[in-house]
Amino acid sequence: MAPVSTTPLAAYERFTMFRVTLAAPFVAHVEINRPEKINAFNNVMFREMAEVFNLLSYDPDVRVILFSGAGPRGFSAGLDVASESTSGPVGTPTAGQDFARQAWAVRRHALLYQEPVNAIERCEKPVICLLHGVAFGAAIDFAVACDIRHCTRDVRFCVREIDVGLAPDVGTLSRLPKLGVSHSWAKSVIYSARVFGGEEAQRVGLVSEVAESKDNLLSDALTLAKDIASKSPVAVQSSKALWDFSKDRPVSDGLLYTAAWNGAMVLSDDVKSAMMSGLKKTKPTFAKL
Amino acid sequence: MAPVSTTPLAAYERFTMFRVTLAAPFVAHVEINRPEKINAFNNVMFREMAEVFNLLSYDPDVRVILFSGAGPRGFSAGLDVASESTSGPVGTPTAGQDFARQAWAVRRHALLYQEPVNAIERCEKPVICLLHGVAFGAAIDFAVACDIRHCTRDVRFCVREIDVGLAPDVGTLSRLPKLGVSHSWAKSVIYSARVFGGEEAQRVGLVSEVAESKDNLLSDALTLAKDIASKSPVAVQSSKALWDFSKDRPVSDGLLYTAAWNGAMVLSDDVKSAMMSGLKKTKPTFAKL
Amino acid sequence: MAPVSTTPLAAYERFTMFRVTLAAPFVAHVEINRPEKINAFNNVMFREMAEVFNLLSYDPDVRVILFSGAGPRGFSAGLDVASESTSGPVGTPTAGQDFARQAWAVRRHALLYQEPVNAIERCEKPVICLLHGVAFGAAIDFAVACDIRHCTRDVRFCVREIDVGLAPDVGTLSRLPKLGVSHSWAKSVIYSARVFGGEEAQRVGLVSEVAESKDNLLSDALTLAKDIASKSPVAVQSSKALWDFSKDRPVSDGLLYTAAWNGAMVLSDDVKSAMMSGLKKTKPTFAKL
Amino acid sequence: MAPVSTTPLAAYERFTMFRVTLAAPFVAHVEINRPEKINAFNNVMFREMAEVFNLLSYDPDVRVILFSGAGPRGFSAGLDVASESTSGPVGTPTAGQDFARQAWAVRRHALLYQEPVNAIERCEKPVICLLHGVAFGAAIDFAVACDIRHCTRDVRFCVREIDVGLAPDVGTLSRLPKLGVSHSWAKSVIYSARVFGGEEAQRVGLVSEVAESKDNLLSDALTLAKDIASKSPVAVQSSKALWDFSKDRPVSDGLLYTAAWNGAMVLSDDVKSAMMSGLKKTKPTFAKL
Amino acid sequence: MAPVSTTPLAAYERFTMFRVTLAAPFVAHVEINRPEKINAFNNVMFREMAEVFNLLSYDPDVRVILFSGAGPRGFSAGLDVASESTSGPVGTPTAGQDFARQAWAVRRHALLYQEPVNAIERCEKPVICLLHGVAFGAAIDFAVACDIRHCTRDVRFCVREIDVGLAPDVGTLSRLPKLGVSHSWAKSVIYSARVFGGEEAQRVGLVSEVAESKDNLLSDALTLAKDIASKSPVAVQSSKALWDFSKDRPVSDGLLYTAAWNGAMVLSDDVKSAMMSGLKKTKPTFAKL
Amino acid sequence: MAPVSTTPLAAYERFTMFRVTLAAPFVAHVEINRPEKINAFNNVMFREMAEVFNLLSYDPDVRVILFSGAGPRGFSAGLDVASESTSGPVGTPTAGQDFARQAWAVRRHALLYQEPVNAIERCEKPVICLLHGVAFGAAIDFAVACDIRHCTRDVRFCVREIDVGLAPDVGTLSRLPKLGVSHSWAKSVIYSARVFGGEEAQRVGLVSEVAESKDNLLSDALTLAKDIASKSPVAVQSSKALWDFSKDRPVSDGLLYTAAWNGAMVLSDDVKSAMMSGLKKTKPTFAKL
Repeated sequence: MAPVSTTPLAAYERFTMFRVTLAAPFVAHVEINRPEKINAFNNVMFREMAEVFNLLSYDPDVRVILFSGAGPRGFSAGLDVASESTSGPVGTPTAGQDFARQAWAVRRHALLYQEPVNAIERCEKPVICLLHGVAFGAAIDFAVACDIRHCTRDVRFCVREIDVGLAPDVGTLSRLPKLGVSHSWAKSVIYSARVFGGEEAQRVGLVSEVAESKDNLLSDALTLAKDIASKSPVAVQSSKALWDFSKDRPVSDGLLYTAAWNGAMVLSDDVKSAMMSGLKKTKPTFAKL
Repeated sequence: MAPVSTTPLAAYERFTMFRVTLAAPFVAHVEINRPEKINAFNNVMFREMAEVFNLLSYDPDVRVILFSGAGPRGFSAGLDVASESTSGPVGTPTAGQDFARQAWAVRRHALLYQEPVNAIERCEKPVICLLHGVAFGAAIDFAVACDIRHCTRDVRFCVREIDVGLAPDVGTLSRLPKLGVSHSWAKSVIYSARVFGGEEAQRVGLVSEVAESKDNLLSDALTLAKDIASKSPVAVQSSKALWDFSKDRPVSDGLLYTAAWNGAMVLSDDVKSAMMSGLKKTKPTFAKL
Repeated sequence: MAPVSTTPLAAYERFTMFRVTLAAPFVAHVEINRPEKINAFNNVMFREMAEVFNLLSYDPDVRVILFSGAGPRGFSAGLDVASESTSGPVGTPTAGQDFARQAWAVRRHALLYQEPVNAIERCEKPVICLLHGVAFGAAIDFAVACDIRHCTRDVRFCVREIDVGLAPDVGTLSRLPKLGVSHSWAKSVIYSARVFGGEEAQRVGLVSEVAESKDNLLSDALTLAKDIASKSPVAVQSSKALWDFSKDRPVSDGLLYTAAWNGAMVLSDDVKSAMMSGLKKTKPTFAKL
Repeated sequence: MAPVSTTPLAAYERFTMFRVTLAAPFVAHVEINRPEKINAFNNVMFREMAEVFNLLSYDPDVRVILFSGAGPRGFSAGLDVASESTSGPVGTPTAGQDFARQAWAVRRHALLYQEPVNAIERCEKPVICLLHGVAFGAAIDFAVACDIRHCTRDVRFCVREIDVGLAPDVGTLSRLPKLGVSHSWAKSVIYSARVFGGEEAQRVGLVSEVAESKDNLLSDALTLAKDIASKSPVAVQSSKALWDFSKDRPVSDGLLYTAAWNGAMVLSDDVKSAMMSGLKKTKPTFAKL
Repeated sequence: MAPVSTTPLAAYERFTMFRVTLAAPFVAHVEINRPEKINAFNNVMFREMAEVFNLLSYDPDVRVILFSGAGPRGFSAGLDVASESTSGPVGTPTAGQDFARQAWAVRRHALLYQEPVNAIERCEKPVICLLHGVAFGAAIDFAVACDIRHCTRDVRFCVREIDVGLAPDVGTLSRLPKLGVSHSWAKSVIYSARVFGGEEAQRVGLVSEVAESKDNLLSDALTLAKDIASKSPVAVQSSKALWDFSKDRPVSDGLLYTAAWNGAMVLSDDVKSAMMSGLKKTKPTFAKL
Repeated sequence: MAPVSTTPLAAYERFTMFRVTLAAPFVAHVEINRPEKINAFNNVMFREMAEVFNLLSYDPDVRVILFSGAGPRGFSAGLDVASESTSGPVGTPTAGQDFARQAWAVRRHALLYQEPVNAIERCEKPVICLLHGVAFGAAIDFAVACDIRHCTRDVRFCVREIDVGLAPDVGTLSRLPKLGVSHSWAKSVIYSARVFGGEEAQRVGLVSEVAESKDNLLSDALTLAKDIASKSPVAVQSSKALWDFSKDRPVSDGLLYTAAWNGAMVLSDDVKSAMMSGLKKTKPTFAKL
């Protein structure tokens, strides 16, 4: 079985650093496609990542997204420091500027780099992150912005920013505290930049499945993705929206938002289709969303 | 040993869908009592559930509550869709109405159904949810509103709403993100409506005890409940109130609220009784609350 | 190997209830030093604890802190009730006062006792809590205010306040709900005041390492502490500050704060030192902070 | 012209302390009806007030509510202390109880009395509060829970609780800080329990209209109410819901909630009716809500 | 004196619906430029507005922005309903779609239209809104997203959405509750869609200056703008950022954010320049930002 | 009549920069006492200010506080830039340090200077700020942390920080947005550092009383203070605490906190004394708090 998808999605062919294919009906597969650099991120990739996920968010032919790194070496080695050192947030904004203006430029830069990561979380469709090999630095920032995380047993995770003299600033420190993982454990790996593997990640709840190989990782996740893609997109995407709103707010706010949101959604034809199929033991089909 | 309680509590005899008994001094046992439908919920049950927990909240003879489903088949099969399809939130509010008015009616309906679940969380006494057999859909909404969850090994949990074309709207999406369970795992089971069992639930921290049978489930929980019932009700109920306020707010707000709350509570006679008993190795008694 | 540090830090010699030594370069070791009472807390200790952690917070010679209890019997037996019964929050504020004024005094007292615990969380440096033997009551309040928790296998944890007729009021109820531990489990041990051990604590994520003995506990933690102390203090301390701000707030607020904070911090010389060392495979050194 | 309405609304005839009439099509007029005691509140009135506003909230024949006090002497003299002193929140809950249990009872009592005031704010229809004569204590709590406040020039407002040894606890202190009035002014009148009149109330923005007499007050407000009643109820009631959610939350949360809410509401037939009428210069009619 | 600026800013010449000129050094003047339709908004204008303010936000030649409507008739007549009725949020998303999908489309549309308004608030430079003539509907949404509002005496403001059967959904209901205006007044004008003028707007604090004519409006505001443009851009833009963060959050969060932000900004060369100029009574100059 | 108090309070005699006297029974008068420098603030004053208000907060002989500036020239000229330029937040932290460490030092400095201002807000007793003459920069930060603000007609207010190249960082930007003043007006005076007088301040609600002279200012405020001091201190101080908690949080949180707080406070003897005095037309006396 060939888990790697083979049908390129036309609307995404213009991207140079990402390969977007249709792994199954309604299942998009986004690959970070710079395997010769272990998918390390440069400016172009950040910009393209935002565009890819913004497009997918409203693409009616996509209901769930697999997100992985091309090649055997890893999901991503993180920020491409060499590429960044000229223009990125760790470079000197402009020699000779006063401190305040340099810091101002860095802050703008941080906001600019946070945005593509926010695009993953804001994407209306569930995103399943598939991590293998090297998953360093920015890889963790991306992973924690996804809905679901699977990995291989031999993945090597590392919140590596401390080792380059930085606190992570595009999402790990804002999202990881709320994903249901042990804070004692998380601070240990952040402060020490210690590498950890798939089993440890599963034990603390960072990932929910561990596969024996990249092939298995992709094929298992594809099974899950196809299952999700067979459900009502109104129901699935509403669940993502409501969970993500609620996780950051008091229960009472989550309930109010849910009631307002579902006012329209409960009236969906999908409810009738799903119920009828349940009674008739048939497979429902749902209109595009 | 007969873990199922046998002394009906008089004040609760009028309820038709719930059986409320005194399992031990100060320990109430609330059973969803529609076993012929695997305790599926209809309108009457929602209404009664709110009343039952509102009454228990201020009942001075109750200090802790066991909450289970009658019969061997399960805790609850969730919403009784057949019963609901005429009048419930998934029915058509009123044929011919414009969309806005239909959605308005659905929103009101959602708020109406959220209320009985809120009553569980708002109940001043700790509620221990005991799940066996089928625990589908609304069963999860109720369970996550309880303080403590125990289950049998062979329980079959399912966040089933997606399979009827809906996002859960009476609490699962608002409460589950904050119970200390892995978000990656939780979104997996929500989006796929996958069934999972007791060991998996314990591994991710959704439940804290797994029993081999329903009998064991009840008798083990009764032991815990009796232990809690032997403590100062001021201390136990204050702990519930303070935890529930704090879990939704910044640490600094939790601390301020705790200090204001405890101003009076620390002056309780229970402190003296408990301390004296500690010194004398006797069993303290506490006034009703 | 002698894991217990031997070099007293001069600035901290005036404290009577805490022993502060330098366990390794930039690694402070704070010991609660009242072993004859299993390090039970009295008024003096609360006051000194605030001072110790406030001093450490800005001490340029300290980058990470080990926090343990002196002697073989335990980390701390909690509040010294005997000592407190005259003047503490569980004593009668002033005989004859009206209820409101008594409660007012208790509230002030609670705020006073919360402050030293806040000082641990507010301390700019990571604090690793090392728990062995008895860790009762206030010990849990202190532990959950630390960044990282390690313990021995035979530690005996107990959220003991319920057994003296009180709800915990100096932090456990405000901080524990957000540390990524199972709420079902946490409420079980709080309401019942049940003793639990190291393995259980690790399984639910309360602690992240379990050692076989107190010696191992200290030496393992020292290894971690030395590792953290070798990193950029700007990066490590920024990570603590940003995590702690974010854990209590929506993701979007965390991201804004991070961008503002890192505006200056990314321009640190530490970034250059760290990167250069990474390329040259040397060990970087960092200026004091 | 007789501004006082004369058509009793049948569904509300059972209330003994409130008179509810139809002042104009879709305009309900709620009068506190205990003029012989200057409409002072006792237990019965609090209970009835919750019921009245809960009923009005979903009453399809009502789109806007006038809320005034019967008789010439005033809107309300506040809490009827004589009536309350036996059973109310300022009475002794139960002689001989320990302090904690007494305080517990008072807290429950406060929540019970907050609820009818919340019912005003939660009522889906705009409520216009019409204040004349005496408007003391609880009168302010009610007024600040309404959407719009008008008064006579000779009204005598007083946040009187301080003068009976209490901090206001059913809403003034929680709602007034956010109504756009000067905090310096508000704290002055709260701490001193100073009486102030209509012009002062208008100058600081507490009320938005001042009338020369009670008759004028009612007839002017009726004109406004009839105007509001002629608009789309979907639009008006959505505006109330969205304002009230937003006023307590960050702008970004308000915008998200608004977008979710309006998803259905913008599709209302009312939009077409309103636009068509706008073009044709006719008066639109709207279906009930 | 010709208050209307005459130097077009090259980078903004491509916009068709907005005219952007340099009214004075560092003072940009943005005019809504569709006077023949009283500057009513269509899709193109929303899209361009976002781009204009995003560009201005980082434009080093701009330190303060005047925002007005071209022509004598008004600032803006609001949404161009005729233009919108085919494609906009008030149109039918897609005939034949089920209700949920239509509502989903409307929600996306609302978010799309909120974004250009957010761009005004998010713009790093102060924006002074200058309102004359007709200022209806969306005009209010734009005005409340600006920092400062001035108007002519004869301006006609109207929160007009209710009159087309809608609740305002691009910002008025989320921002107006927090601008320090009387809520009683605001709800009156929202529910009734009543027109109000400049003096009333000033009395309630919605605007802070009223001019006798459009010419005066522009020239007075230009004086203010030139004054602001002469200050340190680091200081001015920091003040906007800190105010806007703080207004939506507790005081303690505002203070923490301010301290983190100012860490770098206080080190600005602008401080030295400003202080030196203060001592020497000279006019300071500041580097671009 | 001599409004300036003449009885020094012994406990406060050690302060060198503040004069604290008893203006009337239970009314403390705090004067900033550096009139030769128009009460400009240096390091010593910040430190003393925290101590003064912390002491007053728990001083049983004080129920309300007048806060003014000594001498005829003004309340305070703000930060003493000359004094600060060596060591303060606007100085260079340490020459030669890298930027991150300098910014770190400035952030610590800002927190240090915010603390004395927080002490005013946190003080349990109402603080009435009396502003005359010069009230520049830090003067505004102090004023907005007080409960009530009065001023003379000829006061000259100025949020002056922008003119020294800074954004205000010890409270103005965090507190002013929520005091019920027009945001349009506030941003105008902040961005322009424009001087404004007493009438303007009253019109926008920043102050609630304007006096013709400093003598009148003090004597009028003393009358108010004596009135407040004659009330139940439990009621007054509870009102401050509940308002300040509520102003920063949703209404529902304010109500919960109020109910918890008042549980004990409603049981105060003050309620009985106040009611009895009300019936008997006598002047109640209240125990110290």
